[in-house]
Amino acid sequence: MTNDLGAPAQPLAGLRVLELGQIYNGPYCGLLFAHLGAEVIKIEAPRGELLRFRADPSVESREFLMLNSSKQSLPLDLKSETGRAVFLDLVERSDVVIENFSVGVMDRLALSYDRLRAQNPRIVYARGTGYGAEGPHANLQAMDLTVQAIAGVISSTGFADGPPVKTGPAFADFIAGVHLFAGAVAALYQRDRTGEGSLVETAMYDAVFPTLASPLSACLARDDVPERVGNRHSGLSVAPYNIYAASDGYVAIFCVSNRHWRRLAQCMGHPALLNDERFTTPYLRARHMDEIDAAVEAWTSTKSRAEVFERLAAAEVPGAPVQTVEEVARDPHLVGNGMSQTVEHPVLGSTVVPGSAIRFPGSPPICRLAPRLGEHTRTVLRNVLGYDDATIDGLAHDGVVTIREEEPAGSSMEQ
Amino acid sequence: MTNDLGAPAQPLAGLRVLELGQIYNGPYCGLLFAHLGAEVIKIEAPRGELLRFRADPSVESREFLMLNSSKQSLPLDLKSETGRAVFLDLVERSDVVIENFSVGVMDRLALSYDRLRAQNPRIVYARGTGYGAEGPHANLQAMDLTVQAIAGVISSTGFADGPPVKTGPAFADFIAGVHLFAGAVAALYQRDRTGEGSLVETAMYDAVFPTLASPLSACLARDDVPERVGNRHSGLSVAPYNIYAASDGYVAIFCVSNRHWRRLAQCMGHPALLNDERFTTPYLRARHMDEIDAAVEAWTSTKSRAEVFERLAAAEVPGAPVQTVEEVARDPHLVGNGMSQTVEHPVLGSTVVPGSAIRFPGSPPICRLAPRLGEHTRTVLRNVLGYDDATIDGLAHDGVVTIREEEPAGSSMEQ
Repeated sequence: MTNDLGAPAQPLAGLRVLELGQIYNGPYCGLLFAHLGAEVIKIEAPRGELLRFRADPSVESREFLMLNSSKQSLPLDLKSETGRAVFLDLVERSDVVIENFSVGVMDRLALSYDRLRAQNPRIVYARGTGYGAEGPHANLQAMDLTVQAIAGVISSTGFADGPPVKTGPAFADFIAGVHLFAGAVAALYQRDRTGEGSLVETAMYDAVFPTLASPLSACLARDDVPERVGNRHSGLSVAPYNIYAASDGYVAIFCVSNRHWRRLAQCMGHPALLNDERFTTPYLRARHMDEIDAAVEAWTSTKSRAEVFERLAAAEVPGAPVQTVEEVARDPHLVGNGMSQTVEHPVLGSTVVPGSAIRFPGSPPICRLAPRLGEHTRTVLRNVLGYDDATIDGLAHDGVVTIREEEPAGSSMEQ
Repeated sequence: MTNDLGAPAQPLAGLRVLELGQIYNGPYCGLLFAHLGAEVIKIEAPRGELLRFRADPSVESREFLMLNSSKQSLPLDLKSETGRAVFLDLVERSDVVIENFSVGVMDRLALSYDRLRAQNPRIVYARGTGYGAEGPHANLQAMDLTVQAIAGVISSTGFADGPPVKTGPAFADFIAGVHLFAGAVAALYQRDRTGEGSLVETAMYDAVFPTLASPLSACLARDDVPERVGNRHSGLSVAPYNIYAASDGYVAIFCVSNRHWRRLAQCMGHPALLNDERFTTPYLRARHMDEIDAAVEAWTSTKSRAEVFERLAAAEVPGAPVQTVEEVARDPHLVGNGMSQTVEHPVLGSTVVPGSAIRFPGSPPICRLAPRLGEHTRTVLRNVLGYDDATIDGLAHDGVVTIREEEPAGSSMEQ
């Protein structure tokens, strides 16, 4: 199988995915399908999903653009009988449905898994939730912030003498979205054996739980470790391991082995540390963490992040600058490997969107600007369902679908 | 396809995976395969992978038990010619190889993807790295801490007037591990079409990048938002959105809509807030964030986390208690749904391991205690490769494999 460029086809080419995702969780699952070559039809409420328009009702939010590259947009009113019939027609001709509505929404729309399976026994139904379909928390509303709170991310982040801190990135949403994607692909793999699709689910709370391995192990094994350890090792059993001040910000340093410690002392120009009786073994270094950290920071604080990083890299000691998110987006490493991509939006101008963290060397990455609302309504209804123009115009007239007609080249893209 | 219990087979049943993982990243990828029914053979250095024995060289670390449920253990010396020959024999009879060594290690062992593919063109080679195989950072050593630093997680976590803070959970390791798993399953799906395996890669740095959507959007769109916003919304454009003090800890509250705000004011017994001109629209509430937060905390601080949580849930306002990791592990919700499982280790006694965040309703979850070092050496070499006992004993004698013979029932499990 090769594509137009003669390169191997993307691994999920030929699959059709209906994405009813909103915000980050469901849309990230859909984005991963799009990155790997599936045809992803984003079915949105007629006014766009929650993330599409935030401050300005005519311009997409940057977050929306980041999550919806390479998809097609079909705004469809699932609250209308006709809208649901169109949706079921699409289900019949698709492989996967993704949704992350509140528990019960799809049932109330009469679009439960059982109904979809009756339409197409090969359909894979991927459901993202906060807490799963059952259990005491099942019906709670879940947001990244509240799941970080209940799942222990917030209590284990911050300093021992300070308040708990949420993680800046939307950790819970994204880690759940990629688990859901993995589950859906596993269901497709299974379908090749059984001939039948299945229901697959990931709850945000569940997806975060395994990531607690370090702080949970520390608290199961010992009583003397604080709930939060700032930037130190969860078990307070490794040093150097911290974020250290540099002259222009901060750097991370982590000596896993004696060899790293010896190289660090050399690269700091302070080989005498190696003879210091307080620091000769990992156990002793952990016991004298404060002194170790003071010695390391005395060195880092006189240098820029870049200078420390360069020296650590040359000495093969694990370390990195603490970069701002803006520096990350511009990092030549991520720009060069296609992970940080710049796209041109007709109104916003240049903006940054992520490429694919799943790489198949030799398969060209796919990354087209997220669709404008209704950009593909006509194409999808015509090409996938075979509807004629009169039918499509009728659906638009009745408010069942929204159409954004293609503008002639050179015209303004503003509504 | 059904299993012994008459339930549908796990979706990845019938696949054989060779996992050369260490610490969290590669092992989490292997764990997800095991959860979904694949046969996972963990190939470790003769003394065990880095995570197996930490403080005590005879007892597994709790982290190791958390990451290695339901796998088989085959300690094999890949630095020996004979060990590599045994490994290649296994590759010929397997579907997937997972590794997360430093870049170049497999090449130096003469076990590159090209070599493995020559042995078995259907093999899927899943490679987890810190920074990918190419680019300026490719050869850097990567740990969860250093990737959190370079990838913007640390700079975007913490308070505006305080230092940057690492996330307590090992965010970068785990999110990369599940992306790698998804990629490997996508490669298996593709193999059913092409007949050929492939190389699939995920770098930790890449996997974290998409999760920056909120802080990155805020900094691309505006100049007036601080790098860190504590527990507030990344764009400082939503209120209430914060972690609030309760009488016995903290709670998270997030009002997404006007409806949530109305319900919160009612449930706080403070409907007068709804008439306050400073708070009538989302825009105004965001402008008066300090006053909103003070009003909410005046209410939460007089109540326990449980009481606040109960009232928010009844009012359908998104909220959650900030739970400690120990509370998370004991949460009846996670215990009831099988996500927090208790297993009995012969030396450590009861300990907690995660179940599967990818759920196929109807397929029973798989979760057996992680293997002790060499527990399955004899079984794997006999059943998979057909070696006879004399050959196996010879390999053990030469130090190529390590065997832990099964003890008769009732004997001590300690070495």
